[in-house]
Amino acid sequence: MTVDSPQNLLPAEDSQEEVYDRLIIAIKEALHEDNEGVIQEIVAPLPPEDLAYLVERLTPDLRRQLFRAIKKNFDPEVLSYFTAPVLSSIVEELGIPQLALLLPRLESDDAFAVFEELGEDQQQALLSAIPKENRLRFEKLLTYPEDSAARIMQQEVVIVPAFWTVDAIVKYIQRSDTLPDEFYEIYVVNPKHMPVGKVSLNRLLRLKPNAIIADVMETEIRVLSAEEKQEEVSYLFRHYSLISAPVVDEDHRIIGMITADDVVDIMDEESQREIMQLAGVDNSYINAPVLKTSYHRMAGLLISFVNSFILMAIVYHYMDLIGKHVILVGLIPIVSGMSGASGTQVIAVTVRSLANRMISRTNTWRTIFKEAAIGSINGVCFSLALLIILMLWYSDWMLGVILVIALIFNMTWAALSGAILPIMVDRWGLDPAISTGPVLTALTDLLGFVSLLALAKVFL
Amino acid sequence: MTVDSPQNLLPAEDSQEEVYDRLIIAIKEALHEDNEGVIQEIVAPLPPEDLAYLVERLTPDLRRQLFRAIKKNFDPEVLSYFTAPVLSSIVEELGIPQLALLLPRLESDDAFAVFEELGEDQQQALLSAIPKENRLRFEKLLTYPEDSAARIMQQEVVIVPAFWTVDAIVKYIQRSDTLPDEFYEIYVVNPKHMPVGKVSLNRLLRLKPNAIIADVMETEIRVLSAEEKQEEVSYLFRHYSLISAPVVDEDHRIIGMITADDVVDIMDEESQREIMQLAGVDNSYINAPVLKTSYHRMAGLLISFVNSFILMAIVYHYMDLIGKHVILVGLIPIVSGMSGASGTQVIAVTVRSLANRMISRTNTWRTIFKEAAIGSINGVCFSLALLIILMLWYSDWMLGVILVIALIFNMTWAALSGAILPIMVDRWGLDPAISTGPVLTALTDLLGFVSLLALAKVFL
Repeated sequence: MTVDSPQNLLPAEDSQEEVYDRLIIAIKEALHEDNEGVIQEIVAPLPPEDLAYLVERLTPDLRRQLFRAIKKNFDPEVLSYFTAPVLSSIVEELGIPQLALLLPRLESDDAFAVFEELGEDQQQALLSAIPKENRLRFEKLLTYPEDSAARIMQQEVVIVPAFWTVDAIVKYIQRSDTLPDEFYEIYVVNPKHMPVGKVSLNRLLRLKPNAIIADVMETEIRVLSAEEKQEEVSYLFRHYSLISAPVVDEDHRIIGMITADDVVDIMDEESQREIMQLAGVDNSYINAPVLKTSYHRMAGLLISFVNSFILMAIVYHYMDLIGKHVILVGLIPIVSGMSGASGTQVIAVTVRSLANRMISRTNTWRTIFKEAAIGSINGVCFSLALLIILMLWYSDWMLGVILVIALIFNMTWAALSGAILPIMVDRWGLDPAISTGPVLTALTDLLGFVSLLALAKVFL
Repeated sequence: MTVDSPQNLLPAEDSQEEVYDRLIIAIKEALHEDNEGVIQEIVAPLPPEDLAYLVERLTPDLRRQLFRAIKKNFDPEVLSYFTAPVLSSIVEELGIPQLALLLPRLESDDAFAVFEELGEDQQQALLSAIPKENRLRFEKLLTYPEDSAARIMQQEVVIVPAFWTVDAIVKYIQRSDTLPDEFYEIYVVNPKHMPVGKVSLNRLLRLKPNAIIADVMETEIRVLSAEEKQEEVSYLFRHYSLISAPVVDEDHRIIGMITADDVVDIMDEESQREIMQLAGVDNSYINAPVLKTSYHRMAGLLISFVNSFILMAIVYHYMDLIGKHVILVGLIPIVSGMSGASGTQVIAVTVRSLANRMISRTNTWRTIFKEAAIGSINGVCFSLALLIILMLWYSDWMLGVILVIALIFNMTWAALSGAILPIMVDRWGLDPAISTGPVLTALTDLLGFVSLLALAKVFL
């Protein structure tokens, strides 16, 4: 009881980071001295989220050493917070048999999240070690697409028949022992287990005990189908400010629910993915080994690499021309740099607008032309500014005209492709951010070189 | 009652988009025919979120026309879902006096969100038109930093004294008429109104009626201070999977609460901002006028523009050298392109790791050196591949060596700056994504040019 000493409840100060840093140093020392007692003492009071965070921050060796020390006595919820590379090394330390014992102590969604993050070998080993009921459930969930509602949901959910009274529902909640740990809304179902309405707990508390739930429930409910993609799920929660929503199978029967705190995680994952894809990286694990990371990063650099060769071939082709007009070399980065930057802006805006559903069939072309117009206007403004400076510095009118034409053309082209690329990729059913960034830069580089050199060939 | 006809509750299909498109076409037609009856008929059954969405999708003229038709009869909650440019034009149509009448019908957080999105002139006009109590509250909230917890929270919150019984709390909830529309947790306070614990409604339902709340409440609660930045708020919700949290003032007294659905909005805003900043754009409104957007985009292009001149000056400086070895021109884009792409990867990873608190004082240098190592390894791999191709194509050993040195140096440098830049900006207390993308590209371009040309000057 701490009613009169709220000091321990003070809002998190910036010093939270310092607290973590101090804990890490303490853990390191205790591990160094191999003092299991001290380790347990540090680790025991930590919420699982914090313990997971601290473990992620340790080096791979210390991580394993820590788990060797606490493996007999830790909250398995910790496992559900690890990134894939860390989880996999912890599981190696724990061993599959112990993991199989720990999993049933988690809520169904956390257990599956742990399972999902494991490598394929570990998944197979785990499947044969867990009770049949769990195995069948995991196998069923694996049949749903990755990142679908079914894979995120928890199966624990409160459902009641439409003919129950408020009082009966309250009694049911008080007596049942299969309820979720936390829930905020109750779903009302018909005899076929299809959702027909919902009641939030705060409304339930305020309803007359003898009211029939079907008469007082909210009938306008948002239902998620099991195959729904996670970005669709997060869009619906965001758009309708939902706190929870039922998930239904092909026959529209409730099979689970997703809550707003799951969606907060999804959104974090989605925004991570969006940024990573725009930058051409496949993940942001800073705790993975250097060589593995180098290898993963290479894929994203391949587009630039191939592009480099095309550019080199173009230069090779125009070698004589460049030799005669070396100043052109100074103009190339202006054209490709400016159009690259402007195209990147358009890509970012388009990707976000697609995520917010602000672009649909009725306004696709309007959006694309608008972006092209913005690109041309900025092309005109910047090329005029450039023209003036170029004249003062290196008074060659023809060169100025070539630059103006090339820049306006390229900035318009960059804006056009910056809008069209993500929309096209989205229409194909892919994530609009996939590689559109690197591809656009390649395109604008290419066109920057070709247009400038081709124009120079004609006019100089 | 729809217990046996769940068709209207089917999960949202992909055709949701088609439904919206059809609604937009219907609204346009009705507006064209100036048929207020039909407009009301289309608009009335729409949830405010959907109406707001459809309004955003209309052209500026149709938007105003629509609001002229429905202004006497619409759910003011709609206003809280608009982006700033759309809201401001709608408010022009409605007029400040009507807005002043509508605001008190909103929950406190929605009302303030509407106020906050307005331009300064409209804010001032509104402040003098609303009741004094509201004005004082808005003025108080304006003293808190933008995007702070106080500005996001709702003031409606359920608080109870620690000595109350469960039964007394339930009765209070049933009888009070000042409760929030939706709430999921009740906060327990001491006589000074400081939070000392919480109870979720689902636990409250399961507690013994005569239990004293202080004895059964959860005492480990996360409290947000009023000045807390919104990214801190969203981090805490995400890290601890919170569904709601109390906001306290300087004296640690509860002044409001934030719920997970607010955080879903914050996260959307934050991820939007992160991507926009990386791309050098200040917003993603695709519904703002073309000229205004062009103007706003220009700021983000200035870095590239200035950079172009520096590059031009460098080329100018090395003009003779380039004239003698035109092939160098083909190598420049390889060096700047590859290092630009690799630096962008590092920036994205670093920005995300900072957001997830994976980088702190204890591992800053380790992270930076690790990224530099990854950059060099990839530099070595790609430059060796290049060397082989270059030899086969254009057998000049010296040129190959220059390229290898320049590429390895630049990719290492790009990785170093990609890690250092966001960390530095973060330490200054700014958003790590601010302009780091364009600045890095400028740096890698620059170094790409200089290193290659300087090396060539020495060795060729």
